[in-house]
Amino acid sequence: MSSQHHSAPRLLEKAITNPGAVKINVEGAFIVDEDPRSKSPVRTEGVHYEGSDIRLPHHTGLVSHVAVDIGGSLAKLVYFTREIDSSDVGGRLNFMLFETHRIDLCIEVLKQLKEEYVRLHGPSPTELCVVATGGGAFKYYDKLKDALKVNIIREDEMQCLITGLDFFVTEIPNEVFTYSETEPMQFAEARPDVYPYLLVNIGSGVSMIKVSGPRQFERVGGTHLGGGTFWGILSLLTGARTFDEMLAMADSGDNSGVDMLVGDIYGMDYSKIGLKSTAIASTFGKVFRMKNDAEEAASNGEEPDVTFKNEDMSRSLLYAISNNIGQIAYLQSEKHQVKHIYFGGSFIRGHRQTMNTLSYAIRFWSKGEKQAYFLRHEGYIGAVGAFLRRQPVNWGRRTSLDGTTAPPDKETFDGHPKDHAL
Amino acid sequence: MSSQHHSAPRLLEKAITNPGAVKINVEGAFIVDEDPRSKSPVRTEGVHYEGSDIRLPHHTGLVSHVAVDIGGSLAKLVYFTREIDSSDVGGRLNFMLFETHRIDLCIEVLKQLKEEYVRLHGPSPTELCVVATGGGAFKYYDKLKDALKVNIIREDEMQCLITGLDFFVTEIPNEVFTYSETEPMQFAEARPDVYPYLLVNIGSGVSMIKVSGPRQFERVGGTHLGGGTFWGILSLLTGARTFDEMLAMADSGDNSGVDMLVGDIYGMDYSKIGLKSTAIASTFGKVFRMKNDAEEAASNGEEPDVTFKNEDMSRSLLYAISNNIGQIAYLQSEKHQVKHIYFGGSFIRGHRQTMNTLSYAIRFWSKGEKQAYFLRHEGYIGAVGAFLRRQPVNWGRRTSLDGTTAPPDKETFDGHPKDHAL
Repeated sequence: MSSQHHSAPRLLEKAITNPGAVKINVEGAFIVDEDPRSKSPVRTEGVHYEGSDIRLPHHTGLVSHVAVDIGGSLAKLVYFTREIDSSDVGGRLNFMLFETHRIDLCIEVLKQLKEEYVRLHGPSPTELCVVATGGGAFKYYDKLKDALKVNIIREDEMQCLITGLDFFVTEIPNEVFTYSETEPMQFAEARPDVYPYLLVNIGSGVSMIKVSGPRQFERVGGTHLGGGTFWGILSLLTGARTFDEMLAMADSGDNSGVDMLVGDIYGMDYSKIGLKSTAIASTFGKVFRMKNDAEEAASNGEEPDVTFKNEDMSRSLLYAISNNIGQIAYLQSEKHQVKHIYFGGSFIRGHRQTMNTLSYAIRFWSKGEKQAYFLRHEGYIGAVGAFLRRQPVNWGRRTSLDGTTAPPDKETFDGHPKDHAL
Repeated sequence: MSSQHHSAPRLLEKAITNPGAVKINVEGAFIVDEDPRSKSPVRTEGVHYEGSDIRLPHHTGLVSHVAVDIGGSLAKLVYFTREIDSSDVGGRLNFMLFETHRIDLCIEVLKQLKEEYVRLHGPSPTELCVVATGGGAFKYYDKLKDALKVNIIREDEMQCLITGLDFFVTEIPNEVFTYSETEPMQFAEARPDVYPYLLVNIGSGVSMIKVSGPRQFERVGGTHLGGGTFWGILSLLTGARTFDEMLAMADSGDNSGVDMLVGDIYGMDYSKIGLKSTAIASTFGKVFRMKNDAEEAASNGEEPDVTFKNEDMSRSLLYAISNNIGQIAYLQSEKHQVKHIYFGGSFIRGHRQTMNTLSYAIRFWSKGEKQAYFLRHEGYIGAVGAFLRRQPVNWGRRTSLDGTTAPPDKETFDGHPKDHAL
C-alpha cells in the first residue's frame, strides 16, 4: 500500500476542492537511508537523529514552519531543508528525537532552526512558526513561546496522527510493512480499501483510533499499559537506564525464568482448550513460588537461591505489554469492524520481538484473518501530521528556504482539511 | 439472582432426566458467618480457614468425597461435614486455602479428612475419594495418589468453574452481589435470563469463559496479566511478602506518585476526547521522567531525590491489572454478545479497590449498559464445582458421615451432566 501513489488528476481535484490545504509537494517522495547529519544545518550533541530522511524531490515552495510532537516521555521534531550540497531541487524532511524532560534541548534546536531561517531570509513578516502537537503543545506552550518568540500553532494530537498516517500509507513507498520471523520487513502492497483502519499508537500510554475516512476518526480506546510502564517497571527492577538497554536485555532473556507457563501449572499441555505447556499463564507468576521456596529453604538452614535475571524480566515485560496491546487492539478492531491495524509510536522502535509479539497476537486472536502493519517512521506519525497540517504561509509567492523562487506546486498533499471540526 | 431458588418440580424433573447427576441436596442452602474451626474436625495450623461456610440443612446422604482445586499459586479445598455439636440434620461445606508450593500441607489436611472418614465408617469398599481440578490435578496427581492412597478423580477446570458458578448463582442466597462505593455489597436480584454470561476467573492468570447454557461453555480468552503478575512484580519492588500486605499498602497509596496522568502530559484535561487530567495515561509512566530528573540533579551536584513509595506502586499496579482485566472482559462480552459478567478467582479477595476498579471499568466501557457481579466465595468456584460434579458413591444406601442412615435426597443439584463431552 505504501507504493500506492495518488494520481495527478486526483491530487489536482483535491487542490481545487480544498484550496486552503497544505501545499507540501509530496510527489515522488521516498526514504533516504544515510546519515542525516551530513545534510542537516543543525549540529547539536546529545540529540538522536533518525537515519531515514524523507526526500521530497519536487517540493520547491518556501517552508516557513517546523513541527514538534511533545508526548509524555519523548518529543519528536520534523523539519524541512533544501538539499544543501547539491544542485537538486526539492528538499527533505528531517527527524529528531528528544526526551520530554529535556525540552530545553529541543528548544535549543528550534532556536537554531529559527536562526538558520533568518540567515536565509532575513527578519521578515513571514517568520518561522512552530506547529506543536501532543500534550506538551499545551503544557509547554508558554515556555516555547517565551524562548522562541515565534508563533506557536497547536494542532490536535489525534488529528495529527491521522494526517501523518494517511501520508505515510498513501505517499511513501517502502514505508509500511508487515513483520514475520522469516521476512522481518515485507513492504505492504497497495490496496484500494484504505478505510476503515485502526491506528494503535504506543507511546508512554496507548491510544487506539478508528479512522473511517480522510476526515473521520474516533478514539475508541487505549490502555495505560504502554511504553512508560515498560520503562518504569524495568528501570526499577533492573537499574537499566535507557530503553535500548532494556530492549537489548530482552533480546537475550528467557521469560520462562519469571513467567508461570501452562506447563508449570499442569505439568503438561492443557490440550482440552488448546493451551500448550509453553503458553504463558501468568506474567511474573513464577516469582511467588520461587520466593516462597527460597524462604522455606532459608528457614531450613539452606542457602536460599532466588535470583531473577534482568534479561528474563525484560523479556517477560516486553512480551506482556506487547501481547496485551495486541489483544486489546484485536478486540477493538472486532467491535468496530475494522480489518487493518496499524501500530505506531516510539515504543516499537523497529524492535523485532515487539513487532513479532504484536503480529503474533493479531494473527492468533483473529485466527489469521487480520494482520499487523508497521511503519519505518513509527515514532513520527504525529509530528509529520502536524507538519503537513500547515500551509506554508506565503506558499507560491515568496522565495524558498534556499532563496530560489518557488512556483506553486501542482501536486500537493491534502493534509489540512478545513471542514473537519475538531 | 442469588435468591432465585429452584422450585421442587424443576429439581425433581432434573433428577429424573439426569439420574446419574450429583445428589447433593442443596435445598435451603445458606451462608453461615462464624468461625468454621469451631465446627471442623480438621485442626491444622498455618492454614487459611474461610469464615463463611455454606450450610446444607437438608443434605443427609453420605458424602464420600472431598474436592480440591489446585491452581498455579493457590490450592482451594472444599469438604462436607455433618453438624458435630448439634442434633441438626444436614451439614455444611467447609472451605480452606493453601499455597500451591505448600501442597504438602494440603495433603496433610486431606490425610486428616481421610482418617476422620475412616474413624466414622471404618475401612470399607466405599473409601473417601478426592475430586481434583485445576492444573495441579495433573501435575500433582502421582503425589496425591501416593500420599493418600485413595482414588483421585480429575475433573476439567473450566467445567468445574461453570458448575460451581451455576450453583452459586442459582442456589445460594446472598452470594452474588454488585459493588459500588456507596453500597459495597448489594445482593443481586433474581433474574430469569441466567444465560449467556461471561465468567472472568482471576487467579495467577485470567480465564474468560462464555457460558451459553448449563452445559455449553467456551473459553473465549484471557490474559496473563493476573494475580501472579501483581504479586510477582510487587514482591520484587516492595519486598512485601503476602498478598494481604500488598493490598493493605495499596489502600493507603496514591497511584499518581508513579503513574503518568493526562494532566502530567497536557497540563490540563484533554477535553476534546473526554480525557480528564486525572485519568491515567501511563502506568508507572512517571518513573522515567523522575529518574532522569534525579540523574540530572545529581550531575549538577545536587542531592538526587527520587523515591517511589511502596504504597503508591502497589496501588498503581492494582489499578492497572484490574482495569486491564475489566477492559478485556468488556470487549470479550461485546464480541460474544453477553450482558452479564461475573468476576471470580482468588485475586479479588473481597478487596474494595479491586472490585471498585473492575466495576468502574465495566460501567465506563459499556457506558453504563453492563455491570460486574462478584461472589462471596469467589475463590472457591472451581473447587465447589468439582465437589458438586461427583455423586456420592453409595448415595441412598449407606450410612452418612456421622453414622446415621441416609435416605435418598429428593431435591438435588444437577452438577454432573453426563451428556457434556469434555
